[in-house]
Amino acid sequence: MKKYVYFFGEGQVEGSGEMRNLLGGKGANLAEMLSIGLPVPAGFTLTTEVCNEFYANDRRYPEGLVAQVEAALAGVEKLMGKKFGDPEQPLLVSVRSGARASMPGMMEVLNLGLNDQTVQGIIAQSGDPRFAYDSYRRFIQMYANVVLDMNGDILENILENMKQQRGVALDTELNAADLKELVTLFKVKVQEELGQTFPEDPEEQLWGAIGAVFGSWMNPRAITYRKLNHIPAEWGTAVSVQTMVFGNMGDDCGATGVAFTRDPSTGENYFYGEYLVNAQGEDVVAGIRTPQPINKISQEDQTLPSLEEVMPECYAQLVKIRETLEQHYRDMQDIEFTIEKGKLYMLQTRTGKRTAHSAIRIAVEMVKEGLISDKEAILRVAPDQLEQLLHPSLDPKAAKEVIAKGLPASPGAASGKVVFCADEAEEANRLKQKVILVRVETSPEDIHGMNAAQGILTARGGMTSHAAVVARGMGKCCVAGCGELKIDYEKQQMTTKSGVVVKRGDLITLDGSAGQVILGDVPKVQPEVCGDFAELMGWVDKIRRLRVRTNADTPYDSKVARGFGAEGIGLCRTEHMFFEGNRIQAVREMILADDLQGRIKALDKIMPMQKSDFIGIFREMRGLPVTIRLLDPPLHEFLPQNDDDVSALAAVAGIRFSEVKEHVEALHEFNPMLGHRGCRLGITYPEVYDMQVRAIMEAACELVKNEGFEIVPEIMIPLVSHVNELKILRANAVKVAEEVCQRYAVKVDYLIGTMIELPRAALMADKVAQQADFFSFGTNDLTQTTYGLSRDDAGHFLPDYIERGVFVRDPFVYLDQAGVGQLVRMGTEKGRQTRPNLKVGICGEHGGEPTSVIFCDRLGLDYVSCSPYRVPIARLAAAHAVLLKD
Amino acid sequence: MKKYVYFFGEGQVEGSGEMRNLLGGKGANLAEMLSIGLPVPAGFTLTTEVCNEFYANDRRYPEGLVAQVEAALAGVEKLMGKKFGDPEQPLLVSVRSGARASMPGMMEVLNLGLNDQTVQGIIAQSGDPRFAYDSYRRFIQMYANVVLDMNGDILENILENMKQQRGVALDTELNAADLKELVTLFKVKVQEELGQTFPEDPEEQLWGAIGAVFGSWMNPRAITYRKLNHIPAEWGTAVSVQTMVFGNMGDDCGATGVAFTRDPSTGENYFYGEYLVNAQGEDVVAGIRTPQPINKISQEDQTLPSLEEVMPECYAQLVKIRETLEQHYRDMQDIEFTIEKGKLYMLQTRTGKRTAHSAIRIAVEMVKEGLISDKEAILRVAPDQLEQLLHPSLDPKAAKEVIAKGLPASPGAASGKVVFCADEAEEANRLKQKVILVRVETSPEDIHGMNAAQGILTARGGMTSHAAVVARGMGKCCVAGCGELKIDYEKQQMTTKSGVVVKRGDLITLDGSAGQVILGDVPKVQPEVCGDFAELMGWVDKIRRLRVRTNADTPYDSKVARGFGAEGIGLCRTEHMFFEGNRIQAVREMILADDLQGRIKALDKIMPMQKSDFIGIFREMRGLPVTIRLLDPPLHEFLPQNDDDVSALAAVAGIRFSEVKEHVEALHEFNPMLGHRGCRLGITYPEVYDMQVRAIMEAACELVKNEGFEIVPEIMIPLVSHVNELKILRANAVKVAEEVCQRYAVKVDYLIGTMIELPRAALMADKVAQQADFFSFGTNDLTQTTYGLSRDDAGHFLPDYIERGVFVRDPFVYLDQAGVGQLVRMGTEKGRQTRPNLKVGICGEHGGEPTSVIFCDRLGLDYVSCSPYRVPIARLAAAHAVLLKD
Repeated sequence: MKKYVYFFGEGQVEGSGEMRNLLGGKGANLAEMLSIGLPVPAGFTLTTEVCNEFYANDRRYPEGLVAQVEAALAGVEKLMGKKFGDPEQPLLVSVRSGARASMPGMMEVLNLGLNDQTVQGIIAQSGDPRFAYDSYRRFIQMYANVVLDMNGDILENILENMKQQRGVALDTELNAADLKELVTLFKVKVQEELGQTFPEDPEEQLWGAIGAVFGSWMNPRAITYRKLNHIPAEWGTAVSVQTMVFGNMGDDCGATGVAFTRDPSTGENYFYGEYLVNAQGEDVVAGIRTPQPINKISQEDQTLPSLEEVMPECYAQLVKIRETLEQHYRDMQDIEFTIEKGKLYMLQTRTGKRTAHSAIRIAVEMVKEGLISDKEAILRVAPDQLEQLLHPSLDPKAAKEVIAKGLPASPGAASGKVVFCADEAEEANRLKQKVILVRVETSPEDIHGMNAAQGILTARGGMTSHAAVVARGMGKCCVAGCGELKIDYEKQQMTTKSGVVVKRGDLITLDGSAGQVILGDVPKVQPEVCGDFAELMGWVDKIRRLRVRTNADTPYDSKVARGFGAEGIGLCRTEHMFFEGNRIQAVREMILADDLQGRIKALDKIMPMQKSDFIGIFREMRGLPVTIRLLDPPLHEFLPQNDDDVSALAAVAGIRFSEVKEHVEALHEFNPMLGHRGCRLGITYPEVYDMQVRAIMEAACELVKNEGFEIVPEIMIPLVSHVNELKILRANAVKVAEEVCQRYAVKVDYLIGTMIELPRAALMADKVAQQADFFSFGTNDLTQTTYGLSRDDAGHFLPDYIERGVFVRDPFVYLDQAGVGQLVRMGTEKGRQTRPNLKVGICGEHGGEPTSVIFCDRLGLDYVSCSPYRVPIARLAAAHAVLLKD
Repeated sequence: MKKYVYFFGEGQVEGSGEMRNLLGGKGANLAEMLSIGLPVPAGFTLTTEVCNEFYANDRRYPEGLVAQVEAALAGVEKLMGKKFGDPEQPLLVSVRSGARASMPGMMEVLNLGLNDQTVQGIIAQSGDPRFAYDSYRRFIQMYANVVLDMNGDILENILENMKQQRGVALDTELNAADLKELVTLFKVKVQEELGQTFPEDPEEQLWGAIGAVFGSWMNPRAITYRKLNHIPAEWGTAVSVQTMVFGNMGDDCGATGVAFTRDPSTGENYFYGEYLVNAQGEDVVAGIRTPQPINKISQEDQTLPSLEEVMPECYAQLVKIRETLEQHYRDMQDIEFTIEKGKLYMLQTRTGKRTAHSAIRIAVEMVKEGLISDKEAILRVAPDQLEQLLHPSLDPKAAKEVIAKGLPASPGAASGKVVFCADEAEEANRLKQKVILVRVETSPEDIHGMNAAQGILTARGGMTSHAAVVARGMGKCCVAGCGELKIDYEKQQMTTKSGVVVKRGDLITLDGSAGQVILGDVPKVQPEVCGDFAELMGWVDKIRRLRVRTNADTPYDSKVARGFGAEGIGLCRTEHMFFEGNRIQAVREMILADDLQGRIKALDKIMPMQKSDFIGIFREMRGLPVTIRLLDPPLHEFLPQNDDDVSALAAVAGIRFSEVKEHVEALHEFNPMLGHRGCRLGITYPEVYDMQVRAIMEAACELVKNEGFEIVPEIMIPLVSHVNELKILRANAVKVAEEVCQRYAVKVDYLIGTMIELPRAALMADKVAQQADFFSFGTNDLTQTTYGLSRDDAGHFLPDYIERGVFVRDPFVYLDQAGVGQLVRMGTEKGRQTRPNLKVGICGEHGGEPTSVIFCDRLGLDYVSCSPYRVPIARLAAAHAVLLKD
């Protein structure tokens, strides 16, 4: 006869952890715990084959099943010293479903075996009639709902009525008599609703529950879920029946608790946990009683006795179990246990959740303890988690008054006085005052203020709005798109939805990781890159294939990024340099000039400044590659927009207001994102790119000549849609570069490549590659154009789209592998068809997002480039990419 | 010995028209004319093999060539009764290159054989020393430049000096003595520059010219051209040497002329042409003397005698030739002839250029005459040409003062008084006044004004700007992007570059086909769809596979389009309906409403109006499919933008100014093209699409129920980027549609499909097709996003891009087959993978552009949809697509 039922109990386990397919996840886990010698309450599992035969035979059980269940139940009774349905020593059991894969809505019924007789046994054993009747009424509710398929609200309403009659608010305020009455009322109601008596016979209860589990496998919800997740119906579900144990069966020899094999917040290697004497698991969760520490080392409040002191034997047994678990699972475990009448039972063990800090410490220490390999250690740390370590954060213990919520646009925390204007932020910075810059939205004109501020708060814009992107690039905390704030520049104040008015100069704190705006100054915890972290990253760097560069526009950024392990610059945006100090003045002169000569005159002023930037950056990045993107944004971004600023500019430039205004209007664009920018500017005004190439090459030549550098600048042309654009601009750049090299009489190699940030460039990559030494996917713009979705405007609906699951994930955060990813793949493959050694990277925001980094590794890209603060994340993700491929 | 030289002359022709590869284009054509018996001046052709052997043998001619040339030359002399180098009866010849394919910069030297002796013979024969020396000095200039490779400016300067000395402006003002002196000066200069005497020996002249032609085959310019056009060097060039004949050799028996075998402007089947007595071909071109008609039927000025009268024999010969040519070439020919001493020579025949009108008439009549098949007739008419027939145009004979030039944005011509505001245009329309609406740019708020005006003139925006697209849709003439105009709304005037001031109320005329702005009212020619046109289109419709629908938003448009042969509506934009009359008020109420209830209240007002639109359109399109696109533009397009208009709206709506202003600001978008529009609105405000679907379905149900219509409305969801969007909106639409059908108790089938106008939709078309009954490629937006190029802003640089060849063609006019075309192909193929019977069309502007239509046919699309006035063009192009495939 086929074996349909697998027994498990101390010293007697028929299944094993590997038998997931047959025993389901739950059954296999129980078997595994027992097989390593843990004391688990006895029970048995009906296999998934039963389920399949059940459906194959028109919902009839296979022959012999009943006998096998009876035999297993007898074994449980024997081992546990209790009897199913016995009024004195009643055995209560749970019934749970368990498929091969974890599925939502799996079924569970507890306390099977209770009836008017057996409840007396529970009272006798626990000495607690309230507990007994509470268990009984819960059992009826659960059974009626799950097994008898009765609407749960019906019995819940009776409970609510009772509470109203008694004038109490909580279930716990009902006494034993109340609960006993409820049991009666429930049974009457069941009879009334279903026309059948609530089953008193434990056997009937048991088979009812088993049948309900198998029946649930084919309900519409389960069928839909399986379809969506490609789970074949043939997998079937198993059913596990297990003895209930209670931590409150007698006052001083019962307890229940949870513990971690190591400290989950620090990772320190000691046994950490809490328990309650004479309690059930749900009491711990409910938080009504204060739990006690399991040992002295976990003890914060010295007045509470630890389990180590109260039940030293059980504790000693737990310590041994802890060791067994770590040896077996080779990871920190989160366990639940119950002590019934002085006997320890393990209810559950699973991998414990932990902070980034503790994840790293545990991983590194386990390698040293010989428990895991360095590769395993790398996989134990989720790249995303590192974010926590790379920014200051709010002290979790501090009190805080959250007054508004926005998008967590750039992580970290910062406090300062509110200012509403970039210039004021800069001024405050000079006076060493800390400020938070608050704007409806930011533009490139606010960059100096953003740079000067501790953090940025905006009312508009999404996760990839200007404020968000620039702040992340700066490693500055930012809460963006806080639409509920009303910002009044005139009154210099902002008002929250609840009416709190924050004036200029008031102190606030931003939590950029949580998107919170908090009143006053909240204490912070500074980031700490501890030794374990550095050690782990060393292993990471040995394993990964993909290079990690950084997006950096200044020598300072470059330095920070290098500190985080960046292996070069993948994107140096030259336009940010245009805003610094007095440069913007020269830039505006250039734009306002009526002719080529005027433009060249203004560009001549900018050239030395750009050159000195490049020298600074090249020095910081000595020995590493640096990719510099030529001017990208439309010219109007550099001009003032409101009349006051136009007036001011007219005065400084010495031309009429109306003339400046005309210029501003002539440059106006309906869709600047799709306008006269990028290489289109380079074609229209070749003198601008010429100046930039000259600055780059002079900087390189001087360093090579005077300081003996080796350097190969990578000049990157943005927004190419047609190879002809690149052909023209490449020829121009080569001409300037050669002229500079000749003038300095040194030979400096350089590469000329392009951003692939428009769908057409990817589609035509074979042609574009004819003129490019390298490709860098600008996935921000590529995502915008592929979706036809402006990141600056997405705030109007994208949060709603994500919440409703229209888009599964924000495509500006996670590279859309299915759609945009096709273009990245196509661009890479076609580009390398033409030029097999084409260097290919990605420099959009996605370059620092782990799943996107793994995707880039799969496509065979050479590098990713991301903001300095995400470099370690990208490095770790790149290592994961290699390890997950094996 | 190999035959290197092919003789041709009356009655003796060695080559034929099929020998292009050996004789080159020129040589083959001459042989062909002779082979059908035309009197062509004798000559001979050196084959392309000579060229190849020349290069294979280190630039030496093959053996025997000289003898073959001499023999051929002797034959020419005999046939023409002249002798090369003879001082009395000098034979003059031309030398021309001729490759297999037509190539630019092919070489030509005329009047070879002239020297100080032979020029006397020419004087004697013509009695015109001025002509003789003019020919001589031209020969020297041409030979020095082409054969001796001397910079052409050098001799040209001597000519200019002479003119200055003589105080004359034109070459023709120099007399015989002057020209004789020039000959001397030229020769001296040649000696000075090249250190060699100008060759006097006709043999030397001939071989020099032949050598120059062969030598030119390997000059850098020719090599580059061949490379770019994939022409192999092995094709080589041939050289044709031909007798020069002159129409001025004796006063009354010489003439030269051009003629068409049918009237090129009307297509009428009569012999049409002009000639000059005692003249050379260049005199006809120079336009100094008034040419005379060749026959009475061509005679406009009765005072000028016709060739028919003056030289009846030659004319009779020409009439016979005309018949021969039409029988042979089976098309209308454009011929050049010369009569030397009473003997007629044919110099050239080629297919004649013609107007659209005449192209159609000729094609149809030739079918009836049995000359060509109906398929050939279809291919004889270029689809683009039809444009001329479908709009009124300026009388070509009328005088006109062009004051500015812009883009030819929408064809046709119109005159009217200038107004600068849409409301005023509407008011004028009510008063039956014709106006031209002049705006810096137009927006949807101007639509009522555009509709009321005769034509539209804008200073900004490209070929696909709002003004251009809407005007084309309306079939109204439009000149757009006329950047040289300064429009001053305040002063109500515009100023041209040259300073012409046009005030409100002044009369102007627009030529939308030429992009011209003209002062005053210019007479116009009305379009006429004559019987031949209808007949041709009948043949077209029998041949084409691709269906042609129209883009139409109103019953009127629908009617016009149906008149032009539209087979349904491919795109009915519902938003244009939102602007009509008082509707905009309700639309604004909807937008300003704070909650769902407010929106629904406003939508309830709009619903009956939309429904009546749909009823009107369905009626016009009875029996044909109608695709209706749900609301597409962002909501802010419906709100006023300047403060005055905001005030007005606040007053009407009865809410505070600041509140309206806040709404306007909240809806502001940086890149509206990529913003909260299309299906994104449908997801955020499902009530809007619900209202539209209800209006569509109620309209359909009423017609089905009350008028016995058969109708299957096609509901189209715009701007889908993810299948989930379509899934949600499809479910909503189905729910509303079913509810309506149930309410009316009729069964109306309907389709729900989507625009494919974002790259992602094309990339993910297999998924999108799961929820779509049809696809319609919105290639306007698809081009914008694929290129990252806003059509509204492209005016800043796109014209320059096209002029410089950065983009070969405007991708908004011609579908970019290489790039955007990949997405159309991918979208179609992937869509049909999922749903093999998926109906696929295109509804962008490209749907009416012939090369794009042919591309759509190749991809297997089901239909194209275009503006009503382009429907015949698309139909013809679709027929071409089929015929060109064979």
